[in-house]
Amino acid sequence: MSKPLKIGLAGLGTVGTGVLDLLRENGALLEKRCGRAIEVTAVSARSRKARRGGHDMSAYAWFDDPVEMARSGDIDVLVELIGGEDGPAKAAVEAALAAGRHVVTANKALLAHHGVELARMAEKSGAALNFEAAVAGAIPIVKTMRESLAGNRAARVFGILNGTCNYILTKMEDEERDFADVLKEAQELGYAEADPSFDVGGFDAAHKLAILTSLAFGVEINFADVYVEGIENVTLNDIRYARGLGYRIKLLGVAVDTGDGVEQRVHPTLVPLGSPIAEVNGVFNAVAVRGDFAGDIMLSGRGAGAHPTASSVVGDIADIARGVIVPPLGVPADRLAPSRRARMRAHEGGYYVAMELADKPGEVAAVARIFAGAGISIESIVQKGRAISRVVPLREGEMVRETAPFILITHDTLESAMRGALERIERDGHCAGRPRMIRIERF
Amino acid sequence: MSKPLKIGLAGLGTVGTGVLDLLRENGALLEKRCGRAIEVTAVSARSRKARRGGHDMSAYAWFDDPVEMARSGDIDVLVELIGGEDGPAKAAVEAALAAGRHVVTANKALLAHHGVELARMAEKSGAALNFEAAVAGAIPIVKTMRESLAGNRAARVFGILNGTCNYILTKMEDEERDFADVLKEAQELGYAEADPSFDVGGFDAAHKLAILTSLAFGVEINFADVYVEGIENVTLNDIRYARGLGYRIKLLGVAVDTGDGVEQRVHPTLVPLGSPIAEVNGVFNAVAVRGDFAGDIMLSGRGAGAHPTASSVVGDIADIARGVIVPPLGVPADRLAPSRRARMRAHEGGYYVAMELADKPGEVAAVARIFAGAGISIESIVQKGRAISRVVPLREGEMVRETAPFILITHDTLESAMRGALERIERDGHCAGRPRMIRIERF
Repeated sequence: MSKPLKIGLAGLGTVGTGVLDLLRENGALLEKRCGRAIEVTAVSARSRKARRGGHDMSAYAWFDDPVEMARSGDIDVLVELIGGEDGPAKAAVEAALAAGRHVVTANKALLAHHGVELARMAEKSGAALNFEAAVAGAIPIVKTMRESLAGNRAARVFGILNGTCNYILTKMEDEERDFADVLKEAQELGYAEADPSFDVGGFDAAHKLAILTSLAFGVEINFADVYVEGIENVTLNDIRYARGLGYRIKLLGVAVDTGDGVEQRVHPTLVPLGSPIAEVNGVFNAVAVRGDFAGDIMLSGRGAGAHPTASSVVGDIADIARGVIVPPLGVPADRLAPSRRARMRAHEGGYYVAMELADKPGEVAAVARIFAGAGISIESIVQKGRAISRVVPLREGEMVRETAPFILITHDTLESAMRGALERIERDGHCAGRPRMIRIERF
Repeated sequence: MSKPLKIGLAGLGTVGTGVLDLLRENGALLEKRCGRAIEVTAVSARSRKARRGGHDMSAYAWFDDPVEMARSGDIDVLVELIGGEDGPAKAAVEAALAAGRHVVTANKALLAHHGVELARMAEKSGAALNFEAAVAGAIPIVKTMRESLAGNRAARVFGILNGTCNYILTKMEDEERDFADVLKEAQELGYAEADPSFDVGGFDAAHKLAILTSLAFGVEINFADVYVEGIENVTLNDIRYARGLGYRIKLLGVAVDTGDGVEQRVHPTLVPLGSPIAEVNGVFNAVAVRGDFAGDIMLSGRGAGAHPTASSVVGDIADIARGVIVPPLGVPADRLAPSRRARMRAHEGGYYVAMELADKPGEVAAVARIFAGAGISIESIVQKGRAISRVVPLREGEMVRETAPFILITHDTLESAMRGALERIERDGHCAGRPRMIRIERF
């Protein structure tokens, strides 16, 4: 039996104590599986407490400074659970890699911004840089893409990458409640942060998508190229109309190799009811990859939480204990291609469009003419009568008049054409407020 | 750059030529990812042909005998795609492992019967024995369980493990057709074998389940302990009634650690409509694992086919090229626990029961009394009137009389109680023919 693998744990929040829970509960099993013990020898956190989550901290060497711990000769692996794209997390990871120590991290922001340089550092010293927990919690998507699908050229990857958003959208639909109302409850339950904008604004999903894009297409991570829209503007009515039209609304991250660059986008998306991705509800995440040989593969599971995240962190540690070390991004960092952005205006797909149409003769025809003029072909229309119409001010200073919801679904259309048509409809005063659109994916 | 990894390919059927397709198409990409080339240097098959699937065989050293190829010093890895639990497949794999060469195989029968001894041989010589393609085609479930979930104690694993059966059940439901009719079409399309009993009888799924059970619970593979029922007796009416009751019928393989041994079973199963497993249709497979830390994880994808299977075979080869070698069954073979069987009669779950009830007063009450006497609690009943009743001979020599379908769903019940009640109902002559039951899983 080999020597124990010594772990330095930086960050003792819920995931950190989740890792300690796991090692306590399943330590003997892990030792059997890995052929050596896995032992936490050192810990570091912002504030020093005697106990955390039922664990006695006096069992471990304490470091106020995670960088100092990363450099310490008494650990083999730095487990970074501090978070944040810069600051102590980055400094500690760099220090560990520079010293030739392995790193396991759950930090998506760090990887989305600095993943390529960190991978390069790891490869230089032959160390592992594992980050299964950074993308989609317990779901083993990183190893699947990096190892299992090594023989495939990916055509696309997409997924439900943020559990908070999926929880909110599921609740809105199941309980017929408004976004604001459900968000408030999610905050009270601890499923959403006090400042929810990082999650509901789509940025967390975008970090994860940027990492997946690199793994899928062998390109450098390029977070700046991700087009991001959050779920803040999705209304209960959108969810109802979508359902009536045979769709469900999900916040998706999608990366597609268009042949003309990689399109990376995070936005609310209508997906067909009954499609597997539409049935991933609540706090669950899912990632689907299309490989040229494997075909479509989908993985789903818990996207967050102390124990599911700890499962991925420890899976990464187990790989190191067994001597499994592969290039962090699937190909050596120096052989990653530069990321080339496919412009969002060149995106082509179906659209759901919702507007408050002025309720007078000829408006539907006028709007239909604008769409036709832009080469946009309409698949179906839902027009609700005055029964549910509202009185809405059209523009400042203008007379208040009646409007009625006007909803439609288009066939595949160029994003630029759609944007142009909606601007025209607004400019010509056919509707109250701005027409809104949600993209459709017919997987 | 290291030396190329030399492959000897035994078996040149659809999967074998699929592997050659993949290496031709994505060879350069693989070399970039693995840091070395992967080259087929030798091949072996039953009959020698100049070309196979568009590939020129003269490029490779030819071996009539795969065992001789396995022993040849000119290969690093034996890729065994011959199939069959014994015979040349087993002999070639044993010869390769004895010579310290790595093995990649798609052979579920071989592993289900001899997996533990082969794992032991591989570990002895430090060779890899990889078999991702043996379970669920392109789905990376073996690596997920063996590596990603290393930190978890599994509570259960279940899945749709046979694409032929799933295709047939999906077609029966979608097109309202009988089993025999759809099976015939599947045979014509090449989705089912001329002798379909291995697939539709559940044995193929049972082989895969036996392997998953070992990976999940760290026990020796024990195929003989799998309880197996096929889909031959599932009727279109069963599918219709199940749907009306909120369920869909799938052939599932299920392994559960009951605390009193491992229950391994393959049988048609009612799963709730809208549950993720119910939405895995057609030739797709899916496997779901519950880990004590990860929670529920589900992987789905193509369960068969030349290219999806080749994707898994090559993923396994890529691991070897990168130096990734772990114990084939997740823990060293000598540390696997003996498999302890939980008796099927001790299974507890819900049941769907269908019978042709004699259509006369008092029969429903009599049947209900038998269930009540056995401690079986009924959740819902569907009784169809004479509108769809049929005239059926009750027993030989007895008068022909009217019967009507009588369908019910039970709450959780002991299998032994259910079997006893159904025997009693039959013995007492309450129904024509035998009452049938299908187990329910409410995942």
